[in-house]
Amino acid sequence: MGYLVMGILLTIAYDGTNYCGWQMQKNGLSVHGALEIALQKIFNCNFSMLGASRTDAGVHALGQQAHLMLEGTNPIPLDKLPLAVNSVLPPDIRIMAAKQVSDSFHPINDAKSKTYSYRIYNDRYQNPLMRQYSAFVPTTLDMEKMAQAAGFFIGEHDFAAFCASGSSVKSTIRTIYNLNVTKQNNIIEITVNGNGFLYNMVRIIAGTLTDVGCGKIIPDEIPYIIASADRVRAGKTMPPQGLTLVKIFYL
Amino acid sequence: MGYLVMGILLTIAYDGTNYCGWQMQKNGLSVHGALEIALQKIFNCNFSMLGASRTDAGVHALGQQAHLMLEGTNPIPLDKLPLAVNSVLPPDIRIMAAKQVSDSFHPINDAKSKTYSYRIYNDRYQNPLMRQYSAFVPTTLDMEKMAQAAGFFIGEHDFAAFCASGSSVKSTIRTIYNLNVTKQNNIIEITVNGNGFLYNMVRIIAGTLTDVGCGKIIPDEIPYIIASADRVRAGKTMPPQGLTLVKIFYL
Repeated sequence: MGYLVMGILLTIAYDGTNYCGWQMQKNGLSVHGALEIALQKIFNCNFSMLGASRTDAGVHALGQQAHLMLEGTNPIPLDKLPLAVNSVLPPDIRIMAAKQVSDSFHPINDAKSKTYSYRIYNDRYQNPLMRQYSAFVPTTLDMEKMAQAAGFFIGEHDFAAFCASGSSVKSTIRTIYNLNVTKQNNIIEITVNGNGFLYNMVRIIAGTLTDVGCGKIIPDEIPYIIASADRVRAGKTMPPQGLTLVKIFYL
Repeated sequence: MGYLVMGILLTIAYDGTNYCGWQMQKNGLSVHGALEIALQKIFNCNFSMLGASRTDAGVHALGQQAHLMLEGTNPIPLDKLPLAVNSVLPPDIRIMAAKQVSDSFHPINDAKSKTYSYRIYNDRYQNPLMRQYSAFVPTTLDMEKMAQAAGFFIGEHDFAAFCASGSSVKSTIRTIYNLNVTKQNNIIEITVNGNGFLYNMVRIIAGTLTDVGCGKIIPDEIPYIIASADRVRAGKTMPPQGLTLVKIFYL
């Protein structure tokens, strides 16, 4: 007799402040690890889980996706599953939705695009209520120039200049469908949607746009920085706490 | 020779999550206590400090005010003082402004009105990024009824029904100048401005408006609850993490 395998796609929100990232690691508790501990309390059967996106230490998520493969039957109706798992999860992780997916579903390969948000708190002094959910920049930033620079990122490009040095990927070509820079009160929000992102790509784009905002880089330089494929020419990698994985889109 | 006394009014923002409240207490670190430790590193002279509002454990502030009395000369220009103190404060407390005040200034008696905000995260599951800055209410809340009920609080009333039982004050009469209920995405924000607030008054008003929102109390009952002066008739005291002291207005 074989196992009955059930595939469930979980939508997960978390405050990444106290985790070493999504991925299980030898040192420190990961979001994946904390979720496994909770799921073991709910399910009697074996299971495995694969996340759609490896968020770094300190990075947050509103719409992480994870594919849960149960080697047995799920004893809990799917619409009651979030509440059941949430009741045994720490308060900084929450299951927002659960749905059944077909046997052929793959959480990484089937993702069509992802939306990330990067928040900058832009004022003379840091707002303590925002310190874990934004990068603090006290310099006045020129919003118009940042929006102008953002436009150059849209489209299919080789983003090698916006990839953490030392990371090995087959191709550094990605497509950005949307990149918006908005400001409400003192919070600047950079929202980006694309078909995939290189390691630290959103945080390096945010650092480059910040350099544009404070006049270190002019907007018209962006196409040249992209074309250079040279990490050194782009801005610095902004800190993790400003980054949130907002949504992953599947077909 | 007498002391030269200098009065400085500090504007302070803090994340109240890890503090036992503003006021110094035997157990646990208070915001006042943490500020004193930082100020001792900056000033060589004796000083005393009086806060305008005693926020409770877990309550936040964007615009707390504290009157600092220096028994000596301030070695730091006032416009540089926030940066100097912030450099030795923990990251969950920040000085936002400092200005000199006259000898007759009193931070509590001279306050003309205060604005508080109470935030409710209203969705099926709690947003982990909001858990320390909002109360979580999964029940659908009727915004129209909440706004209607809010109108009845405005004006001078005896708010005895909205005061934590057991607290001793001379008078329970207060004036509310403004009370607004707004919703953006899943965040309901109750903003109230008044000439003073009884112990737990904003949190009990928020609890009463929540009861209106979910249909336990009808808006037209509010004047009767106020007139009853009976704590039992008002809603429950909402948790501290939803409350933020936004601003204190002086003449």
